[in-house]
Amino acid sequence: MPRTKDVIVGVDLGGTSLRALAVNGRNEILAMEKIPTNKAQRPSRLIADIAGVVEEAARTAGLKIREVRAVSVGAPGPTDPVRGIVHKAPNLGWHEVALASALKALLHVPVVVDNDVHVGGIGEYALGAGRGAKDMVAIFVGTGIGGAIISGGRLYDGSSGGAGEIGHMVIAVDGPVCGCGHRGCVEALASRTAMEREVRAAIKNGRKSIVLKIMRETHHERMTSSIVARALKKNDKVMRKVMQNAQHYLGILVANVVNLLDPDRVVIGGGINERLGEEFVGPIRATAYEYFLRPKDVHRVRIVGGTLGDNAGALGAVVLARQRLREV
Amino acid sequence: MPRTKDVIVGVDLGGTSLRALAVNGRNEILAMEKIPTNKAQRPSRLIADIAGVVEEAARTAGLKIREVRAVSVGAPGPTDPVRGIVHKAPNLGWHEVALASALKALLHVPVVVDNDVHVGGIGEYALGAGRGAKDMVAIFVGTGIGGAIISGGRLYDGSSGGAGEIGHMVIAVDGPVCGCGHRGCVEALASRTAMEREVRAAIKNGRKSIVLKIMRETHHERMTSSIVARALKKNDKVMRKVMQNAQHYLGILVANVVNLLDPDRVVIGGGINERLGEEFVGPIRATAYEYFLRPKDVHRVRIVGGTLGDNAGALGAVVLARQRLREV
Repeated sequence: MPRTKDVIVGVDLGGTSLRALAVNGRNEILAMEKIPTNKAQRPSRLIADIAGVVEEAARTAGLKIREVRAVSVGAPGPTDPVRGIVHKAPNLGWHEVALASALKALLHVPVVVDNDVHVGGIGEYALGAGRGAKDMVAIFVGTGIGGAIISGGRLYDGSSGGAGEIGHMVIAVDGPVCGCGHRGCVEALASRTAMEREVRAAIKNGRKSIVLKIMRETHHERMTSSIVARALKKNDKVMRKVMQNAQHYLGILVANVVNLLDPDRVVIGGGINERLGEEFVGPIRATAYEYFLRPKDVHRVRIVGGTLGDNAGALGAVVLARQRLREV
Repeated sequence: MPRTKDVIVGVDLGGTSLRALAVNGRNEILAMEKIPTNKAQRPSRLIADIAGVVEEAARTAGLKIREVRAVSVGAPGPTDPVRGIVHKAPNLGWHEVALASALKALLHVPVVVDNDVHVGGIGEYALGAGRGAKDMVAIFVGTGIGGAIISGGRLYDGSSGGAGEIGHMVIAVDGPVCGCGHRGCVEALASRTAMEREVRAAIKNGRKSIVLKIMRETHHERMTSSIVARALKKNDKVMRKVMQNAQHYLGILVANVVNLLDPDRVVIGGGINERLGEEFVGPIRATAYEYFLRPKDVHRVRIVGGTLGDNAGALGAVVLARQRLREV
């Protein structure tokens, strides 16, 4: 039996908001706190905010902060998990921030730090759509495309902690330019950002679409997942075609990864999956099956949507912290 | 100290020839035997031949077959390493052949079976260009393109033993048709088979090239690695352009794999590397660097040609057998 107070606070630190979950040893969520973040804040200011939210989550769970076993943070960028450093988080304006030591100095509890996509993958593996899998790959599709590889229950993080960068796999040599500067990355073909670019281009070329109208009406500057869902529901032809193309590319990405890594589960997470579910995952699965090299994989490899939604990162951070604390 | 008679016979079973090495505990090659193979042979006939070659290698090494610790075979196709079955070896006309049990019945020593590309990768990792690496990816470029992933000293074989199928990664959506039936696999863009197709197409389109002439003079129906090397040496413009394109695609492949798996070493093996060495690997490395996502990887990830040549598979089979025997 886990101790009653075997509580860990998992934090999903994003460019627009920060979510903290106090989670007990049976992985039950005891408290949830959420605040907005912004790039204008200095790192020390944001770290103080994180500490405050963590204390609040502990308090709501009925604990003093010193009774919390650990705090575990998923950060939006590459990290050094051993030293607890965030190398680079463009959405926060962070560069080489010693997050673990700074938080530890404020809270006096052990602090674990890893990448947000890594912890999201671990979350889905341990508590979500990946449960029961042997080897899993998670693909999160949002404004970008991120990935995590889980093998034998553990994060596969490579020789320097950077494994899983699935969004910059080139699948269309000489394709559209990506944010990273290269051409033909799957992120430049199938992320929400890429879809928005394609929708705008189609409209500019005279195609009729209600997407921009919905954006104006809902006061959005960007084509969010909910706007994508609304346009599809209203059978917007431009949105439908753009989505089909993105799903085709994502299907090829899934097949590339399955052929290379031979997992038995692929979990597709992120905002679009949350809004659309099987409407999003189904066509991706169909294309992936088509491109599988091993025919038996069609029966063996499950391709499913993530089930943890916005909690995947914070829950995964908790799971990762438990693994790391066992090792110390 | 390893026992004097800690000898394992490693076998590289190919579609055109079979090579057996008797190797001692210090990984010294005590004997080498080689015979041709052909697809017309029934599996039982070829397995009897393998047994004969293994016995011959043992004899040359001064041992009776029962003094050999194990026999380890790399087979040209997907295998079930646990049950010692070759699922499919098109170049041998094999389908679900229980190689391990058949060989064991003939030789009365333990038999290990795995895929030829997997063992080639392990060979380069343990005894060749991968020595000292933490995580390595091997890419063998020949008539096809195969791969092996080594992590923490061990083969990463995925949930069903099939990991490493790097040749069918789609990097050019809607590109040329591959032998597997899909479009745009790197094997359809950068294997020796793909290069030959491009050379023939260029000649058909009126470009001048000496490749076909060299093939006629040397009585080759296929564009072998040595013909590629000769044409390049004579500065054949068609061959040079086709090679540059292939190297560009291989560079993107290397970057895709490094970005996804974060190894600290990539070894490029196979016939073309053996003939051309740095002339082949250099431009691949340059393109890979260009497509790396993590700038530090340019200094951290070494991209090198394989050094074991035709012995990679048989030596790797020996190394793999030692790992497996320790586990039993």
